[in-house]
Formats: sequence, structure tokens, C-alpha cells
Amino acid sequence: MSDTLTGTAAVEPFDAVDVIRAKRDGGRVDEDALRWMIDAFTRGYVADSQMAAFAMAVLLNGMDRDEIRVMTDAMIASGERMSFAGLGKPTVDKHSTGGVGDKITLPLAPLVAAFGVAVPQLSGRGLGHTGGTLDKLESIPGWRAALTNDEMTAQLRDIGAVICAAGSGLAPADKRLYALRDVTGTVEAIPLIASSIMSKKIAEGTDALVLDVKFGSGAFMKDFDRARELARTMVELGTDSGVRTTALLTDMNTPLGLAIGNANEVRESVEVLAGGGPADVVELTVALAREMLALAGQPDADVAAALRDGRAMDAWRRMIQAQDGDPDAALPVPNETHTVVAPRDGYVTRLDAYGFGVAAWRLGAGRARAEDPVLHSAGIDLHAKPGDRVAAGQPLFTLGGPDDSRFTRALDALDGAWELGDAAPEGTPLVRERIAATS
Amino acid sequence: MSDTLTGTAAVEPFDAVDVIRAKRDGGRVDEDALRWMIDAFTRGYVADSQMAAFAMAVLLNGMDRDEIRVMTDAMIASGERMSFAGLGKPTVDKHSTGGVGDKITLPLAPLVAAFGVAVPQLSGRGLGHTGGTLDKLESIPGWRAALTNDEMTAQLRDIGAVICAAGSGLAPADKRLYALRDVTGTVEAIPLIASSIMSKKIAEGTDALVLDVKFGSGAFMKDFDRARELARTMVELGTDSGVRTTALLTDMNTPLGLAIGNANEVRESVEVLAGGGPADVVELTVALAREMLALAGQPDADVAAALRDGRAMDAWRRMIQAQDGDPDAALPVPNETHTVVAPRDGYVTRLDAYGFGVAAWRLGAGRARAEDPVLHSAGIDLHAKPGDRVAAGQPLFTLGGPDDSRFTRALDALDGAWELGDAAPEGTPLVRERIAATS
Repeated sequence: MSDTLTGTAAVEPFDAVDVIRAKRDGGRVDEDALRWMIDAFTRGYVADSQMAAFAMAVLLNGMDRDEIRVMTDAMIASGERMSFAGLGKPTVDKHSTGGVGDKITLPLAPLVAAFGVAVPQLSGRGLGHTGGTLDKLESIPGWRAALTNDEMTAQLRDIGAVICAAGSGLAPADKRLYALRDVTGTVEAIPLIASSIMSKKIAEGTDALVLDVKFGSGAFMKDFDRARELARTMVELGTDSGVRTTALLTDMNTPLGLAIGNANEVRESVEVLAGGGPADVVELTVALAREMLALAGQPDADVAAALRDGRAMDAWRRMIQAQDGDPDAALPVPNETHTVVAPRDGYVTRLDAYGFGVAAWRLGAGRARAEDPVLHSAGIDLHAKPGDRVAAGQPLFTLGGPDDSRFTRALDALDGAWELGDAAPEGTPLVRERIAATS
Repeated sequence: MSDTLTGTAAVEPFDAVDVIRAKRDGGRVDEDALRWMIDAFTRGYVADSQMAAFAMAVLLNGMDRDEIRVMTDAMIASGERMSFAGLGKPTVDKHSTGGVGDKITLPLAPLVAAFGVAVPQLSGRGLGHTGGTLDKLESIPGWRAALTNDEMTAQLRDIGAVICAAGSGLAPADKRLYALRDVTGTVEAIPLIASSIMSKKIAEGTDALVLDVKFGSGAFMKDFDRARELARTMVELGTDSGVRTTALLTDMNTPLGLAIGNANEVRESVEVLAGGGPADVVELTVALAREMLALAGQPDADVAAALRDGRAMDAWRRMIQAQDGDPDAALPVPNETHTVVAPRDGYVTRLDAYGFGVAAWRLGAGRARAEDPVLHSAGIDLHAKPGDRVAAGQPLFTLGGPDDSRFTRALDALDGAWELGDAAPEGTPLVRERIAATS
């Protein structure tokens, strides 16, 4: 009943119940009402229970392109907004929706920076079976994730590449909303995923953004069509918000590269920066670098050359040193390992990203709760990938950790997660589709 | 992610997020999980935000007949369950979904009790534009709404009719859930309305129940089809729970009777008990009494005779006296009145129940917040009903209250709420449909 004798209309311009009802009944929420809802939630005037009901209505009834833009803008307005306009060079960032063995940010940021572009890569820590970029880099002795805004700006000017922790000042409404979605079964709403990711990236002040939206067993979005819908939604949202945005839809049914963990993923990244490394990691690094450089005005940049000739490696070393890391220091190695060998001759036909992600997580490479530490030496090294021929007794993969106490549960997760067959499997493209803006 | 390293599975058998997701994705919630959800919500383990998301998923995706029964049973299990099995006579109760001028409980309970049936009528107070039975009865000097269980049982044995306040011990989960639904836009979910109403009625321990489900402008359900769906759901739920249940779907586009308020509704009820009163109030009282007596094994009871010959009045007087009320005391009357007269000759074609309900509420007969008092003398007396012919200058209705400070806002609510025309409107049946159990 909107008609009350004792209203609070003089204090607050909208009523949360009216906003919830509009979305519940399948309608649009007006711009002013939606901005108010996010603002009032941040202030604590709109209760968690009200925002949870609203989030469920959004999940089931959707939001149109304009509502998503307004919601994202309201989340940005809840916090600080950075700007790198004074740098005198274009800024371009990359965001991955998360996968298993996904260390691409590590070689990618210095590679793109080697072309004179600023890459302000604000990253997060891992949770669940997907790894976190900061966790991986913290394997490097001395390296620190926290930078002040001034340090970040100076490093972008001098080196071009920064990978650091996102400050809590960016889109604090998102942090609160995400925590609520996590416990109310509303994480999976595409409008809410898109505005959560993009609010932080837009607030970060980048000129352009390339999204690596993953699909498959190891991805947040298992389903290709849902991943494509998310990619399109985010590309539209970035474009509508003044950030040049493209997306690649990439396959996450198989772990990326041969290393799944933290220190071992840094080692693999350094191999790529040295001109080597696994073919899939190189392919995706190069594909994303080309997208980023195209958005930064260098569509013809010879990306592969910068991996071969040491320019990317030089940017990497300077980037690590600027954040007090020692690029030459020895990385942690496991004290205990356990290797699984091929039971027969054959082809590797499947390595399930989800199973390997959960196994690495159980080894201690990931965390179950945000406050848990990770074990930097823990993880899995693959010795063969789908399509490789192996002989009976040949190593397939090796579990590693500080001790062997977690191996049994990790092996449980790998039960059924890999297969050998008599014929090589059909190859599938790593980059399935590219999404660019339409307006 | 259900697969966690540090689970709480040993402490709680279910995860609220899994329950929410099952309903969100259009599925059934298993019996044990649903019982746990309500119990854990009552214990405070399931958060308001989680129950709000669940309620929104129920509103948008529905619940099947068995889920509604389990949910209701779980709400009953959250509190005490009364029993009148030792009375030696059948018990039958009536519940109305609420309307304007709906004083039917007042003549109905003593009328049915006059046939040797026990009527344990646990009632509520009004909120918003619909009145509350207890508010009306509290117009009677001395009358008290609160009875102990022993007092209630004794009164049911001796007199048969009790109208009293529902104790807080019945279905406390419902009280908590209703408060949450009220602020999260989830009041309108039929499975939740049905389980809210029926959990209290079933916990009350009645053998049989007649539902007066109203539709139209003054009803909670404006739409006939929605009201019918609610009626069917509640009749099925009562039947599935072992309570013989039928429902009448009754028209609430026009206020019931001529009195809208509190003391004036008691006066009108006493007129009906004296064998007079407005035709529509008598019609509905008799129709509901016949339903109740049929369920109590007296399908052929001559209900109208008990109004004419004083048996119902006698039960009324004893019922009021048993609760310390004086049936002969003068009832409060308004100090100030304002009468609206017909601007021309014609027929009354429309008196909008919602408009008159809001006007009476604004006069002070109802409350905006549960903790507000009501003004027992405030209200509206109608002098003509739809179909009546009036002459220019003839009184149409009279507002009353302790002073005239609220008349302007009440008249605002009546703007457009009544119409005169040149021809009598077509009559519509008061009782539109009867719903009985099918299994």
C-alpha cells in the first residue's frame, strides 16, 4: 500500500518495495529509482533482505541494456573513480572471468606495455577452484600487491605495466552486493555479473578493455551461450560507458598451459616471456595482446616479436622490481610430489579443467574462504595435454605440495577428470569467438 | 560451489543457497530441505536475505501442492499446536481475507454457536484500509481480546463462541516471514499467502474451516481469478492437512452493509443478531453459517430462524459478557459528523470499497502501523447502496470522528469513489462461487 498516513516520503524519494515490485512484475526500473536503490543500499537504508529480493527478481526477469548501464554507473558512484588521463599514453586493461591455469595476465601486461601502452591491471585473489593473479605473483620473494595511487601512476608512466590489488575504494557497493549475492543464490544473474565486473574496471579509469570470457567446465559459465550473452552484455556496457571494449570467448574445458598453481604458473609465464612456453598460453597471450593494442591504436603491432626479442621480458623484470620483487629469486618448489603415469599406451583425450582446478585447490593452491592463505609451492604440473600420445608408464601429471597430507583428497577430485583413448581427439579452437561493440 | 574444503555440513544438513537455487531454477524443494529451511530461518541460521531471495523465487516460480503443505506444516511446527478434541462437540472456524465493512465474524460466531458447535475464532487487528475484528469488538466497554487457553476452552464448552486474539505461540515462523515479505515485495505470492493464513488456522486445532475469500477493489486480491487461485490453494491445503475446508468467493467491490468503522459496525452486527440489518450482511452471514454448519454435520440447520428467534443474540450476549464486555453499554459515537448529499436525483451506481476503506482509515478507524491505536467512534455510515434511488439533497453518507480534523483527507479519498446515474446498475451476486475440496 503506497497510500499511508505516516509516510517517510519526505526523507527518501523512493520506496524499496516499489523498486522491487517493478522488477518482480517484469518492468523496467526508472533511472532515478535504480540509482537511489544502489545508493540507499550502500548507506544501509535499503536492507540486505530487500536487495536480495531485488537481485532474485533481476536474475529471473532480467534487465535491459540501459538499466544495466545505470546500475553500473550507480555502483561506480558509490566509490572513488581513478583517472590516468595525465599519463600521455593510452591505457588498456584486460579482464578474465577466471579459469584453471589462467596465468595470462602475467606475460600479457608487460608484453602490451612493451609497446608504450599503459596497462593498469587491478587484480584479485583466487577463491574456489580458479586461481588469482595476485596469489601467483606473491610466489615471487619480496613482491607486494598493494600500491598507492601515486605509486601506481608513476609505475604506469615509467614502465607501463602494473599488476596490483584493487583498493577497496573502487565501487564499494559492488563488494557489498557481491557478498550478498554469494549467500542468496543470485550470483548467476548476467546483469549483476556484468555490472559487478565492469563497475570496477570502469572506475579504474582505463580507456579500453579486452575481456577474456571463458566457457566450459573450468569456467564460471559452463555454457557457451550463457558466456556469449555475458560477453555481449559487458561489451555493450563498456561501450555505453565510454570504454572501448571487445571480448574473446575462450575455451576453458582444459587447463591453460601445463602449470596449475602459483609458483609453477609464474615459472611458465617467464618461459612465455622468454619466447618459449606452452603453445596454448602463447596463443592466448598473443591474441589478447593484439586486441589490446588494436584498441590502443596499434592494430599492426608485431606482438610475437616482442616475446622473441626480450622487450616483453625486460618490461616484466622492471614491473616486478618496481613492486619490490626479485625476478631472479628462486621460486618455492614442493617438498613432496606424486606423479600419475599412463596405465597404457594411447592418446590423452581429455583433461577436465574443473577436476584439475579442484585438485589444485585441495592441494592448497587456492582457498575456500577469503581469509585463508594459499600455499605457493602447491599445484599440479601436467606432462601431456589432449592430443598428445603417451606410452604406458609415462608421467601424465605431478601433484606437489609442502607435504603429502592433501594428496588423497586431490586425487579424489581427479578421479574421472582425465581420459586416454586410442585415437587423438578432434582439436577445438582456443578462441571460439570475438565480440565487438554494436550500438 | 557445494564442494568446499571447510564445510559446515556436519552442523547443518542443508545449505540455504542450494534450497534457494532449486526454487530459483524452477524445481521442487525436497520435503526435508524445505522443513529445514523454515526451521533454520526460525532459529536465525538462515538469514533474512536468504529467505527474501527464496520468497521472491517462490513468488516467480510457484510451489506445488505438496510443497505448500510441507511449508505450512513446518510453520506450524515452529510453535504450539492447540487442540479442542476434549470439548465433545465439533469445532469450525471462519477466515476472511479482509474487506471494507466486513463485520461478519461478529454475528456469525454466536449464530453458529447457537447450534451447539464450537467456534474458536482467533482474530487479528486491522492494518491499512481493511478493518480488524478485535478493533471493532474493543468498542464495547470492558471487552477484552486476550484470553488464556483455559479461558478459551471453558468459553467454547459453555457458550460455543469465542472471538479472541491469536497468541504469539501459533506459527511464530509465519510472523517472522510475514514481516520480511512485507518489506521485500513478496507479500503477493499465493503459496506464501496460503501457508501464512492456513498455518495459524491449522495450528489453532479446528476440525473444519470456511474461508471467505474476497475479490474486488476493497479486497487484498483485486482480481477474481487470483482470488479463486488463492481459495483453491487454501482449500486443498486445509484438506491435505486434515481440516475439512470450503471457501466462498465473495464480492468486495462495494463495502459490506452500511457501517464502516468500529463501534458502528458493532451496532450493525447487533441489528443482524436481532433479526434485522442490511440485506447483504444478513446474506453473507447466513451463507457462511450454512457452510460452517454443513461441515459440522448439520447441513439442514435453519440458520435464519436462529437470527429471528433470539438464539443467536443470546449467544452473542453470553460471549461478550464472558470476555468482560457489557452488551448493554452505550457504544462510542462521533462528536463531529459531515454528511455528503446527492447533488441530483438518480440511482447510486457505484460505491467503491477501496475508496471508502481508505477514507474510514484516514478518519482514524484503521491504523497505518501495527502499534498505532484506532479511534472507535470514527468511521462512515452509508445511507444508500448501489441500486438505491436518491433525490437531490438526500444524504448519501456521513463521516464521523472525535473531531473534524481528518475530514478533508478522508473526503479526498472519496473523490471519484461514488457515482450516481440515471439507471439502476445491474445487480451482481455477493457470493460468486463456492470452492470445495477435490483430492
